[in-house]
Amino acid sequence: MKVDFSKLERAFNPRTVVVVGDSKASNFEWIRGQKEFKGKLYSVHVNPNSFEDIKALGVENFTSLLDVPGPVDLVIVAVARKAAPAVLDDCIRKDVAAAHFFSSGFSETDTEEGRELERQLIARAEAANFHLIGPNCMGLYNPGIGIRQNEDQYLGDSGPVGFISQSGSVAIGFSMEAHFQGVNINKSASFGNGIVLDSPDFLEYFGRDPAIKAIGMYLEGIKNGRRFMSVLRDVAARKPVVIWRGGRTEDGGRAIASHTGSLASSSSIWNAALKQCGAIQVGSVEELIDTLKALLFLPTVRGNRVAIAGGPGGQSVTSTDVFVEAGLSVPRLTRESYAELETFFEVVGGSYRNPIDTAGPVRRDMKRIMSIVARDNNIDNIAYFVSTRPGRHITREQLQGTMGILEDIRQLNKPLITMVLLNTSDAANEDRDIMNILQERGIPAFPSVPRGAMALKNAFDYYNNGRNRG
Amino acid sequence: MKVDFSKLERAFNPRTVVVVGDSKASNFEWIRGQKEFKGKLYSVHVNPNSFEDIKALGVENFTSLLDVPGPVDLVIVAVARKAAPAVLDDCIRKDVAAAHFFSSGFSETDTEEGRELERQLIARAEAANFHLIGPNCMGLYNPGIGIRQNEDQYLGDSGPVGFISQSGSVAIGFSMEAHFQGVNINKSASFGNGIVLDSPDFLEYFGRDPAIKAIGMYLEGIKNGRRFMSVLRDVAARKPVVIWRGGRTEDGGRAIASHTGSLASSSSIWNAALKQCGAIQVGSVEELIDTLKALLFLPTVRGNRVAIAGGPGGQSVTSTDVFVEAGLSVPRLTRESYAELETFFEVVGGSYRNPIDTAGPVRRDMKRIMSIVARDNNIDNIAYFVSTRPGRHITREQLQGTMGILEDIRQLNKPLITMVLLNTSDAANEDRDIMNILQERGIPAFPSVPRGAMALKNAFDYYNNGRNRG
Repeated sequence: MKVDFSKLERAFNPRTVVVVGDSKASNFEWIRGQKEFKGKLYSVHVNPNSFEDIKALGVENFTSLLDVPGPVDLVIVAVARKAAPAVLDDCIRKDVAAAHFFSSGFSETDTEEGRELERQLIARAEAANFHLIGPNCMGLYNPGIGIRQNEDQYLGDSGPVGFISQSGSVAIGFSMEAHFQGVNINKSASFGNGIVLDSPDFLEYFGRDPAIKAIGMYLEGIKNGRRFMSVLRDVAARKPVVIWRGGRTEDGGRAIASHTGSLASSSSIWNAALKQCGAIQVGSVEELIDTLKALLFLPTVRGNRVAIAGGPGGQSVTSTDVFVEAGLSVPRLTRESYAELETFFEVVGGSYRNPIDTAGPVRRDMKRIMSIVARDNNIDNIAYFVSTRPGRHITREQLQGTMGILEDIRQLNKPLITMVLLNTSDAANEDRDIMNILQERGIPAFPSVPRGAMALKNAFDYYNNGRNRG
Repeated sequence: MKVDFSKLERAFNPRTVVVVGDSKASNFEWIRGQKEFKGKLYSVHVNPNSFEDIKALGVENFTSLLDVPGPVDLVIVAVARKAAPAVLDDCIRKDVAAAHFFSSGFSETDTEEGRELERQLIARAEAANFHLIGPNCMGLYNPGIGIRQNEDQYLGDSGPVGFISQSGSVAIGFSMEAHFQGVNINKSASFGNGIVLDSPDFLEYFGRDPAIKAIGMYLEGIKNGRRFMSVLRDVAARKPVVIWRGGRTEDGGRAIASHTGSLASSSSIWNAALKQCGAIQVGSVEELIDTLKALLFLPTVRGNRVAIAGGPGGQSVTSTDVFVEAGLSVPRLTRESYAELETFFEVVGGSYRNPIDTAGPVRRDMKRIMSIVARDNNIDNIAYFVSTRPGRHITREQLQGTMGILEDIRQLNKPLITMVLLNTSDAANEDRDIMNILQERGIPAFPSVPRGAMALKNAFDYYNNGRNRG
């Protein structure tokens, strides 16, 4: 299979989309998912019982894909597995750019019937060099034009992230939670069993896409390790690639076999290979979102030395431990900085040593303190508490004073992260608004200390891999 | 100093409280903090400029503690450090049960004046066997009677947790966020420099208090290691003690010296000692809250084998990795369970192997599936996804069906945790409500997979220490 990027380009930015065999039982989830699509949307369905429902959704139905007028860029196939090979034949005859097979029940079920049907799909697609996505997947998402994997996904906010996922629920869950956190998708592909188009194809395509500034991947297995590593090495040198791997553990490895039919590989081989290629590995959806956020918002993270400021004493101590345990350091400032700070810092109830504990009396001097700390030659990065403790939400008015301090630091082009400690009170939405305001000004905000520390460390690792730009 | 628990009992459950030297600059934060206290509240202040303000707060002021009528159970001292020894003398003369010194600027500032004043406080308190809490701390919190460390703290929900903290901001932040998460304080003490009453005193007292079912501690240093370990061993054998230690790292160790004047100890010594005593260590406020929640809500966690269920495929795989990496296992079920499950489980789009991936078609059989899984002899604990993916919130109506399944599992008395994946959308409050509903039924809910896994592992460790009950 030789991937033709012009066909992927048509599939991700289609003019005409056809949904084949959408099911009444699922309330026509695929037609509904594309209802905001601005191009032409058609249905192909052979069961007369569904004709009225499809018409009521405002979508024209045909009984054969070959009857659909004009060229077709993307077909979404939701038929039962037995019918999949015949639909694939029609896609090939119609010269469709690409088809996404939602249909499942193939090799991932470990049944002879499923394996045989999958072999048929592979053979027919490869003979025709047909761009098949899946099966057993949620396909493509392009929020800018209204192509979705699920009706719940947001539309309109076309962001800088390309996402490639072997799992449909991970693709959808990631896109939604990342969006709430201010990290938006440009294009996303869920490719399931990946029997024709596989992760390196999407990775290479996203690597060439100038609108995509960072790439996230959720992977369960690799079919062609050599090609994957070669593409990854090439793309990661140009833009950050963050990889979340399912099946890292023995029990997880058993689970992926049932999920996408993938075989688990040794973690030590994976870890070494991904590091060598310049990719960053993460272990949860939270770490994936936070790491992409850090990479997208921060300038090059050149060093691992952090000044922690803005919090009271206990939070300063505990966050120092968390940053150091994440692999960063919270060093002493230079003698020059200390000499300047001690001329005016009120020592009772605070400390200027780093962490900068500014409880109470010295907050009025914070702008002056931070102008010294942020310029210090021992400091590469600043981590600033916008919330002063867990469970306290801050108001937009309170943010105003802090914003001036943060804007000053930003002028220095040193990486600056903020912590807005998201609580679970009724005020949680206000905290989220504060995160958004900060991020609209280009300052990344993290919902807990461990999450901020891990994100900064991962960004540091990306830029200090030796292979990547910076 | 020989601690007299009857005096601590009076201090935590006072009839009369006096605030000495509350500051106008802080808008009389201590008087305001106690405004809902149901007993007698008085002020002692010598500056006539403050008299009107104190009167306006509805509090009677005296110019000397000795003039306050009747016995005094708790004095909150907010004077500048220089005046602290004289106030202590008055407390001793008045035979006050205990005094909390908010005043700071002592040994934690590393100044000769601060150290000398601290020595004076120690000498006078020890000579009189006076129960001094602090200095440089936020003192006591008893939400049931209205004694607070901060005006923001909630009142009325007297819970099962005793909390002991060297840091005031940690004590307040923990109490608030824990409350939002359904984990409520019974009594809390912030003891700062701990020059007279120290962590073992509060620990021993909380160990004897039948209303306190689990104890959390935030510690920066230990003065008398032998006594601390002896008390900890004794208390942890009777109720869970969860310890968050500040200054675990070298940089964090520097920070604690500036914060509470504590000296860092070697982490390996601490880790071995705490484990030997049967305590559980945590590394963040999130882990502290989650671990207490697991210990309070779950029956004895006897084994480390987990069935994961309720999520779609990708989430099943990734959560398996997270649980295994936390130190638990997600094993195969027994052959008998598999034989029963395969008679009706629809394999297309799901898996019954564990994790139990029940995307789509099989959710209608969930009650039957879970009755088999939860009874399986290979399974010690159940982790159930109430949210089916990140970024999706669930409604109360959707919870109804799930609740029936969960109630069935609870009947078996196997530990059951749920994951309600808290997102940051406008619907976050609804998710929090779902967590509360679950927890009102006695089922602990965790806001992310890593947090649920870590909490269950910590509870397992507590019960499998060999020393603790279970």
